[in-house]
Parts: sequence; C-alpha cells; structure tokens
Amino acid sequence: MTFHPTRSLIAAAGAMALLTGAAAADIDLEQYMEMFEPLPALPPIPADNSLTPEKIELGKMLFFEPRLSSSGVISCATCHNPALGWADRLPRGTGHEGQIGLRNTPTVLNSGFLTSQFWDGREPDLEGQALGPIEAPDEMAMDLDEALQRIEEFDVYIRLFSEAFPDDENPINAQNVAQSLATFQRTLNTPNSPFDRFLRGDMQAMTEQQVAGMVAFVDNGCVACHQGPALTDGMFHRFELPGPTDLGRYVVTGEEFDRYAFRTPTLRNVAVTYPYFHNGSIDNLHDAVNLMGEQMLGQEFDDETLDDIVAFLHALTGEMPAVTIPALP
Amino acid sequence: MTFHPTRSLIAAAGAMALLTGAAAADIDLEQYMEMFEPLPALPPIPADNSLTPEKIELGKMLFFEPRLSSSGVISCATCHNPALGWADRLPRGTGHEGQIGLRNTPTVLNSGFLTSQFWDGREPDLEGQALGPIEAPDEMAMDLDEALQRIEEFDVYIRLFSEAFPDDENPINAQNVAQSLATFQRTLNTPNSPFDRFLRGDMQAMTEQQVAGMVAFVDNGCVACHQGPALTDGMFHRFELPGPTDLGRYVVTGEEFDRYAFRTPTLRNVAVTYPYFHNGSIDNLHDAVNLMGEQMLGQEFDDETLDDIVAFLHALTGEMPAVTIPALP
Repeated sequence: MTFHPTRSLIAAAGAMALLTGAAAADIDLEQYMEMFEPLPALPPIPADNSLTPEKIELGKMLFFEPRLSSSGVISCATCHNPALGWADRLPRGTGHEGQIGLRNTPTVLNSGFLTSQFWDGREPDLEGQALGPIEAPDEMAMDLDEALQRIEEFDVYIRLFSEAFPDDENPINAQNVAQSLATFQRTLNTPNSPFDRFLRGDMQAMTEQQVAGMVAFVDNGCVACHQGPALTDGMFHRFELPGPTDLGRYVVTGEEFDRYAFRTPTLRNVAVTYPYFHNGSIDNLHDAVNLMGEQMLGQEFDDETLDDIVAFLHALTGEMPAVTIPALP
Repeated sequence: MTFHPTRSLIAAAGAMALLTGAAAADIDLEQYMEMFEPLPALPPIPADNSLTPEKIELGKMLFFEPRLSSSGVISCATCHNPALGWADRLPRGTGHEGQIGLRNTPTVLNSGFLTSQFWDGREPDLEGQALGPIEAPDEMAMDLDEALQRIEEFDVYIRLFSEAFPDDENPINAQNVAQSLATFQRTLNTPNSPFDRFLRGDMQAMTEQQVAGMVAFVDNGCVACHQGPALTDGMFHRFELPGPTDLGRYVVTGEEFDRYAFRTPTLRNVAVTYPYFHNGSIDNLHDAVNLMGEQMLGQEFDDETLDDIVAFLHALTGEMPAVTIPALP
C-alpha cells in the first residue's frame, strides 16, 4: 500500500464535522479506512520454514528455556515478558549479570509482520534474529555450542527436535533452534483490536475520539511511515531524542544517511509496550506523539489532536495470545 | 500422624512377595497406605488471611511483577519459575546482578502445607516469607517502600488492592503485599499424583515398582521424616553434604544442636524440582536417595531398593497448577 497523506482529503470531505453525524460520515470515513489493513491472523510464512505444530511447541519451550543463558536464569521470556506486552517496560534491556543494554526491548508481538528485525534492521527475518540475544554478551551471554549441549542432555528435547525436524539426521542444531523460535513467534499475534474490528465494519468498535484520532493520524501524515498491517513502513528514519543513542542503521550499511537512523516501530499494542523509541527515553504516549509531530512532521499538535491520536493508539491494543507456561524438562 | 517405622511390619506381611499377586496383597498394602495422606485440595488457611478470589488475583500479579525488584527484571516467578516446577533448577538461586545466593531455591508448589518457611524455618508462614526475597540484597534487592511507591503509580493496582482489602483505608502496604502473595501461593498445589490416586483406591495408578518403592520407603524408615500431606515432618536435621554449606537453623535459634540443620523438604514433585538439598549439590534422585540412606538411616541401599524408591518418588509428581500469565499494567 502506498499512501501520500494530504490535507485536502479531509478538508474536502469535512470528515471531522461528520464523524458524529449522518450517513455521509460513513462514506467519508471509508476513504480513511481504506488506507489501513486489519491485522491478518498470521504473518507471511517463509517457504523454507513451514509453520507446524511441532515447531510451535518446541519453539515455545525454547522461548521459556533459561538454560539457553549462561546464568541459567534468563530466557527469551525474561525481556520479552508475556506479562509485560512481551517486552520489559524498561528503557533499555537488562541482561546478563544486570548489564543494561544499548536499546529498548522491542515487543515480540506481531514481529512476524516486520520486514526486518532489530532496531537497526540488521537481520531480515525472525530466523536471523533468534540467536542474536542468546549470544549477545549483555543479554543471555551464552555460547551457542554449550547451549546445544545443554539441550541435548534432555530426552524430551531429543524427541521434540526429532518430531519438529523429521528429515534431519542431527536435528539439535543452531539453525533448528532459530527455526523453531521463529515459528513460535509467528504465532504471537494480536488480532481483533478495536481498530481491526472497526476496519472490518463494526463502526462501534472505536470511540468517537478514537475515530477522530484515526482521521488526525492520516491527515497529519503519521500514516506515511506507520502503514501496513503492523503500522510500520519498515524504513529507517533519523530524529533527535533525549538520552543516549548509538549509530543505528549506520552500523549495518555504513551509509552516511543511515547514521542515527532506526526502523519505524510497529504501533500495534503501543499502549502496552512503553517506554518508547530505541533508547526508551519517553515513557508515555502523549510525549511520544508530541515528539513525533515536532521531529518527523515539523508541527506542534494542538491538545485536542494530541488527545485524539493517543486515544486512537489505544485502539491498537489487540487480543493477547493465550500462552500457558510450558513445563520444561 | 505419628509413625515409627519398623522392619517387622513388612517382614510379617511379606508384602514384597505379594505385590504382584493375590488378593492378600491389598490387605497388606493397606497398612502401608494408612501411613500416608493424599494431598488435600488446599492447605490450612489462616484465620487472619482468608482465601478470596480478589487476593488470589492480586497475589498472582505481584508474583509475576518484576517491578518489585530494583533492576525491574526479577520477579518471584524468575526463581520460582512455573516452567521449572516453580523453582529454578539451579544449585543455588541467582538474583540481583547475577549474584549466586547461599541456598537452593525451594519450590513454591504445596508450600502452604509446610509448617515453617525457608530452609532454616525462620518464618512460620507464607505471609512471613513473602517479603524476604524482595528485600534480600542477593535476590530482588528492593527497598520495600520504593516497591510500594512503584505499585501505587498504577490505577490497576490501586483498584485491585482496594478490592482485595476493602476494609483498609490505605490498602497498598507491605502487609497486604505479603497477604496477597501468600494467598496466591496457597493455590499452587499439585493434587492427583499417581501416589494420591493410589492412596484413594486406584490400585493401578502406581506401577508395581512404584508400589514396591512405597513399601521400601516405609520399611527403611524414610517415612519417619517424610510424612504428612507434603511428606515432611517440618523438623530440622543435620547431615553432611558435598559443596558449600552454612549454619542453617543455628542462625535462627542459636542452639548448638541446630548447627548445620535444615528443614526436611517436601518430597512432592521431587522428580521435577532438582537439584537437591539446601545447597543444590546433588542433581539426581538416585544420588539423593543414596545419600539419605547413608547419612540419615545409616545404611547402603541395594540397587533394587534404590531403583524402587526412586520410582516411587516419581509417583509424587502431581498435576501442575494451570496458571496463565497475567497482563501487568
């Protein structure tokens, strides 16, 4: 979907005035609704890593497996905590021996819809992402070979890897850890948010203020970068934030225009995945939206617009995946 | 229940020989079965802390709440991990900034049945236990007042504390944190193990080897200390272990006979709550049973007896509580 926001759209339709009123409102709103996509039930599944129940089950166990960390107490679920919107609600991730990392922990929710992984987009997919935090010295600080040796000690894992990868002679390997973790993560989606229900035709699913916020979101150009099912264009942008920063996308490409640039984050579940931005320096949505207005759109939102957009962002909280904690061997 | 184990019992009945056989076996087995109690659905509930759905819900959220730790990433559930038998499967607990503590993390499962808390029994009940790990510098390392301040920031917690403690003017306080955590923990019981079903009359619930192990468990005197619904007498005993130790119960009482003494642990779910003993130095049941035979009973079990007792201990794994991860504010 390509969309170039324009003030003329809303001006012509007078949509704001019509929101509370007559039949014409629906027609005008449709132009806005067409700029968005409801979240599909599943993200794209790669041809070389089919989504199977066996891989989902194994991936779930590995996601909760603290023995993948050198200390034996940190699992993927420690920072991508299901109780905290599958993130950690800290400015920056806290890992091995209490070290504080460089960047804010992104939520795993709907991460299969992203076109690249990590804030700097250095991996193209969840398979490429999965092993990074296990090995990172300030996260799980684990040697991958040692992790595999620990896993191999358990009959349960030997069986589950064999079932998930029946064609492999030695299925317990790093690639299969990554494939099963990625497969599990592709199931962690949050459908049926008020926004999705609204887009599917339930006009009562969002409040009037949230609808007004959706209109303001389009009209002010937020949608230029926050588009598509996960409300991110997958592109890299540069702006100024308080607090520590790093070179961002530049580290990946070496291109000058990528210096301090970070990938547009998803806005899905943004109300429950605070604090915000790559360094987690902003802890509430009002300040985050305000900063985006100033930095990306060159304007100061009036209080009403700000409130409306924040209300709209609350409508992006979907149904959390019902994950029961696995019993590990 | 008072029980003094005696070899004459089994000798007279010839139970071992009858296990696989005729009707007489059931009669003999009954004498053994009467020495045990199936796990009740709930432990005793204190008069001054009634078990209410509101306290259970609040306690569950607090149990998973990492903001009760100074780092913001450690919750009760980090070391009492539901994926790992509500313990951590490490020799000794790993807490704030990776510090390794003095003792093995006991499981929370069925802890409401214990007559004292902590390895040294320094607290009489779960209410007394609950705040200890939050404040311990090598566990969650959190100032209690600061923890309460963090909680007070959330409308959800203000509401939940008010609902759980409707008579309190200022319900967010340390005592109520302890009361709600204790209440939640009293719901974490594991009924209907093969052993419980066997005791209730399902004679097929345990294997023949497990029944033989139960008989050996009684006949060799293990049941002298491992008795009652949680299979612990709640008393303190001293024995020699490899690895680091500490003064144990002596720290609490100052009595010479308590030096290096630790409370008999529950045997419920012992197969899934390795490693064993207060310093976690033994990582498998065979070695643990063998050590107990040598140290507490002054005998070396033959291989068959050892295998039988270990098989019996596997029959003590009950149904794990079905806990879904709460959504924290």
